[in-house]
Amino acid sequence: MSTLYGIGIGPGDPDLITLRALAVLRKTKVIAWPAPAGGESLARRIAARHLPGGCEEYAIRIPMDAARFPAEEIYARAARDLGVHLAAGRDVAVLCEGDPFFYGSFVYLFARMREAHRVEVVPGVSSLTACAAGLAAPLAAAADVLSVVPATLPEPNLRAALGNCDAAAVIKIGRHLAKVRKALAATGLLRHARYIERATLPNQRIVPLSEVGDGDAPYFSMILIHRRGCAWL
Amino acid sequence: MSTLYGIGIGPGDPDLITLRALAVLRKTKVIAWPAPAGGESLARRIAARHLPGGCEEYAIRIPMDAARFPAEEIYARAARDLGVHLAAGRDVAVLCEGDPFFYGSFVYLFARMREAHRVEVVPGVSSLTACAAGLAAPLAAAADVLSVVPATLPEPNLRAALGNCDAAAVIKIGRHLAKVRKALAATGLLRHARYIERATLPNQRIVPLSEVGDGDAPYFSMILIHRRGCAWL
Repeated sequence: MSTLYGIGIGPGDPDLITLRALAVLRKTKVIAWPAPAGGESLARRIAARHLPGGCEEYAIRIPMDAARFPAEEIYARAARDLGVHLAAGRDVAVLCEGDPFFYGSFVYLFARMREAHRVEVVPGVSSLTACAAGLAAPLAAAADVLSVVPATLPEPNLRAALGNCDAAAVIKIGRHLAKVRKALAATGLLRHARYIERATLPNQRIVPLSEVGDGDAPYFSMILIHRRGCAWL
Repeated sequence: MSTLYGIGIGPGDPDLITLRALAVLRKTKVIAWPAPAGGESLARRIAARHLPGGCEEYAIRIPMDAARFPAEEIYARAARDLGVHLAAGRDVAVLCEGDPFFYGSFVYLFARMREAHRVEVVPGVSSLTACAAGLAAPLAAAADVLSVVPATLPEPNLRAALGNCDAAAVIKIGRHLAKVRKALAATGLLRHARYIERATLPNQRIVPLSEVGDGDAPYFSMILIHRRGCAWL
C-alpha cells in the first residue's frame, strides 16, 4: 500500500533536516509543497538541495487571505490529486515547514486523506525550539508550564492564555503585534519578552521588542517569554 | 574561542538527528552525555552510531533521586571539567535527548557556563512532536492554545493548566500517573487523552490510557490531549 508522508523539514536552515526525512525524500517520486498563491514556497526552498532529480512536484497554492483559510476547496482538490498518485502505487511526500503536526497546514490534508490512505508523519525540528536556540534562552525547564499561543486570538484570550503559565511562546505574530504587545503589558510580561523573526534563515533578525514597529513583524516571527526570566537556573 | 555545543539529538530514533547535529559531532573532540548514576545513557545510545572514533567522552552521572535534583554539585563539577577543555581550545558537545532548551538538563550546564564561554545550541526534534507523530494525532493547529504540563506538579496546578487550553501535552508521567488521571477526570479531558511511551524507540508502546496501571508508566511517557478531538479538521 502506498504511503502519504508528512515530512517535517525543520524551521529554515536546510541542515536542520533529519536523516529520516532525507531517506524518505530520496525514495519518493511525488513531492508536494505548500506555497502562497503567486509566490515562492518556503518549504520547497528549505528542501531544495535535498530533492532527488526527476521527481514529480505538486504545488498546493493557498491564498494568503486569512478570511478564506483553511481554503477548503484547494485542500479538497490537493487531496484528490495526491490520492490518484497513491492509488497508482506512488508514495507521496508533503514538505512541511517545522513539524507537520505542530500548527502546520498538513493537518488539512491529513484530515481529508487519513481514512482512505496510509499516512506516516516524520517529525521535524519546530520553529519553537529553533527560536529558543536563536535567542540563546531556554524555552522551558523542570516544572514550568509552557503555553503556545497563536497571536491571531482576540486580546482577552491572549491575556487568559498568558496569565496562567511560567513560560510562553506567542506564534504567528504578523499583523497582530500591537494586540500582542497590549496583552503582554496587561499581564506584566512585556519586560520578559524576547522577539525573533525567521529563525535559522539567512535573514534571521533578533531585536529588542521595543524596536519592532507594530506593522513590521512578518508572519514567521515569535515572541518567547519566561515569567521568572531564567530564575530557575 | 572554543564553543560549548548543546546538541539536540532527537527523541530516540537515531535517524531523527539533524545534519547540523551530525556535522558538529564529527568535528568535536570532546563529547559529554548525561546518564543515571549506575546505568546506560539514553543520549549516548541514540547518538552512538554517529560518534566519531577517538573522541574523548565525559559522563555526567545524575542520581535519579528526585529530592537531590538538580544535583548542584554534579553540574558544578561538570561545568568546571568541561571548562578546562574549552580553555585549552577544545570544543565540547553535550548530547541532549530531544532539544537542549525544551525541558532538558542542559540548562543546568548552560546556566553555569554561559558567562565564561561561547555557547551554541543546535535545536532537535522534541519528544512532543515525536509523540504526536507516533499517535497519528496532530498536536495543535490553527488558533489552538497548547499547554505543556509537567506531571510533577501538584494536582491543583495540573487542573489549572489543563483547564485553560485547547490542546495539552502532559510530560514526565512516570510515577505521577494516578494524579494526572485524577486531574484529567476533573477537567473532563480523560476521554480525549492518548498515551504513548518511549516514542520512536524500538520499545515504543501505545495503549489506551485505561490499560496503563498507575505504577506502570516510565519517565519517558506522555499524554496528549485535544479538547475538541480533531473537530477543527
